[in-house]
Amino acid sequence: MKVHGKHYRTIWLHPSDPTIVQIIDQRHLPHQFIIEDLTTVEEVAVAIKDMHVRGAGLIGATAGFGMYVAALTASRTSMEAFMADLEHSGDRLRATRPTAVNLEWAVKRQLAAIEQAGPDVEAMIDAALQTARTIADEDADYCRRLGEHGKAIIQEISAQKDGEPVNVLTHCNAGWLAFVDYGSATAPVYAAHDEGTAVHVWVDETRPRNQGSRLTAWELGQHGVPHTVVADNAGGHLMQHGLVDLVIVGTDRTLYTGDVANKIGTYLKALAAYDNDIPFYVALPSSTFDWEKRDGVREIPIEQRGDAEVKYIQGLYNDEIVQVLLTPVDSPAANYAFDVTPARLVTGLITERGICPATEEGVLGLFPEHRTNK
Amino acid sequence: MKVHGKHYRTIWLHPSDPTIVQIIDQRHLPHQFIIEDLTTVEEVAVAIKDMHVRGAGLIGATAGFGMYVAALTASRTSMEAFMADLEHSGDRLRATRPTAVNLEWAVKRQLAAIEQAGPDVEAMIDAALQTARTIADEDADYCRRLGEHGKAIIQEISAQKDGEPVNVLTHCNAGWLAFVDYGSATAPVYAAHDEGTAVHVWVDETRPRNQGSRLTAWELGQHGVPHTVVADNAGGHLMQHGLVDLVIVGTDRTLYTGDVANKIGTYLKALAAYDNDIPFYVALPSSTFDWEKRDGVREIPIEQRGDAEVKYIQGLYNDEIVQVLLTPVDSPAANYAFDVTPARLVTGLITERGICPATEEGVLGLFPEHRTNK
Repeated sequence: MKVHGKHYRTIWLHPSDPTIVQIIDQRHLPHQFIIEDLTTVEEVAVAIKDMHVRGAGLIGATAGFGMYVAALTASRTSMEAFMADLEHSGDRLRATRPTAVNLEWAVKRQLAAIEQAGPDVEAMIDAALQTARTIADEDADYCRRLGEHGKAIIQEISAQKDGEPVNVLTHCNAGWLAFVDYGSATAPVYAAHDEGTAVHVWVDETRPRNQGSRLTAWELGQHGVPHTVVADNAGGHLMQHGLVDLVIVGTDRTLYTGDVANKIGTYLKALAAYDNDIPFYVALPSSTFDWEKRDGVREIPIEQRGDAEVKYIQGLYNDEIVQVLLTPVDSPAANYAFDVTPARLVTGLITERGICPATEEGVLGLFPEHRTNK
Repeated sequence: MKVHGKHYRTIWLHPSDPTIVQIIDQRHLPHQFIIEDLTTVEEVAVAIKDMHVRGAGLIGATAGFGMYVAALTASRTSMEAFMADLEHSGDRLRATRPTAVNLEWAVKRQLAAIEQAGPDVEAMIDAALQTARTIADEDADYCRRLGEHGKAIIQEISAQKDGEPVNVLTHCNAGWLAFVDYGSATAPVYAAHDEGTAVHVWVDETRPRNQGSRLTAWELGQHGVPHTVVADNAGGHLMQHGLVDLVIVGTDRTLYTGDVANKIGTYLKALAAYDNDIPFYVALPSSTFDWEKRDGVREIPIEQRGDAEVKYIQGLYNDEIVQVLLTPVDSPAANYAFDVTPARLVTGLITERGICPATEEGVLGLFPEHRTNK
């Protein structure tokens, strides 16, 4: 999507030196737009671990490019040494965010593709490059396709409102910054906006890490989509007063039964949408489905993060990004990263194959190849 | 309640000079405990307007003491001049927070009491002092009494949990800092804690102004009540997992039909409590009842405050209290201060006369003198 009027993805090769991978260092957003060069596996690992990049899709794509960097920099003294270096780099990348499934998947896919292209090292490096590109392109393409499906929902509401702006509420950042392009929850918004449909987005700031006010607000603003930042507390009031037409959120893991794990606070918005008869959609590339678990609240483990994210917050002060203390220094804080929205509160799932009800039947109807497991 | 082991109210007379009113300047909490002297009506007005003091009960008490300061400093050249000065001071105080009903009420009560004590000026000043003290004492007494009633709810749950800590979730600051002492939502907690019942409080940070993490966490910590600060997003998850036994919140205005206007975000917690079958109580001195309106969502006007409270936040940085920017500098923000929780989601109202259902019948059963209006 656009930044300062120019089209960007979240990860790409340096235009004049294809051995350099470039990313947006998202830690500095929205205050500073900083592009970072990655030329070693260690730099890629640090970029994932320290959240220069984040979001399931982008983590997978970064690992893909990381393995390309690994192939470029691996020992060429023997095939054994080359492959041993690659395996070692894969382990290094896997260890950065142990719960990110896309990381494991991208590393495995690369190792298989590189090995298959051997024994010529140049061919193997080329396979790594093509696979990295394919992983990134697939991610962008899945998001683009789910955006097309979701766009129809927005345009249907727009028609009922005689072209008045459709008010979409979203939580956290399931935007293009979390993927390679388009995003999940934002893809329908960008697709509708780019076709001239009037859309306005209520952006939950999404404490404690404020991915909404830091990232979603920034990317919508850069792309020219009208939006308003609100405290996470505001959504219920907005819905009670007819100021929200639909909710679209992303997801970190969606069970095939329709239960949705997403950023902490999503469940509260789903309750408010249900209470006010407002459609609540979850947008996801199908890679986010969990085909094993059935009961989200009982079975999905919820990460607890450090209390500093609640007690402190990052912001801009005198042109410098600083952390300020919000609480009494001695007060304990708890920091649950995700919650589970039960399927009964979800109107539908927007996937790259189309939209389905948040039920086992609905999901398996769109993804019949997973029926056999059940 | 206690601060650094010593008992405080939120407003009092200087122990060695009863012409000086003292308050805690709450703007600096939780980082600095600063006591401010108020010796002129203008200082009192600024203290209310700039929120050195806040909360319905404390605003009323401060206006009461403000009129005592007005009497002390009024012209003594003639009775007309004295009363004209008092009227003028009353207008100055009323103008500070135009929507605070306790302000108007305290000024009126003082003017009547002072006039009645005339024409001797010393007697009039004494009447102003006694009335200021009475307003403050009544506020503390109402809170103490509702605390006794609410304590029973906590102790009943404690008995069912074999003395395991009772987990109370609260939103915003309806603590003693918002009143003269005890608070409303916190009064049952302090009463139970002081009798040795194990209580633990989940403190919603309460964006955008963070009254929870700044004030409620501080006052609970100072009084020795175990507590944990959480992002406003966390409450639903806590309730889904059995980590909340009951919710107690305060209120800015409660309709006699049971609809409750309180700090933005309260409605979301009420929905989650309802969805998880957790009792949701609202604690209020009866002065907070609105005996006119019937439908909260439709009839209660909701204040919209400046966007800076959403875009910036105050915190401690290098031992200095500073404001940091959280959003893209150009992103708009909306800032609704309150929302309305419909009576159907409220388990009961805890008042100084006892606990009643959040229904017209329940409220008028406890306050039958208001039946005649209906």
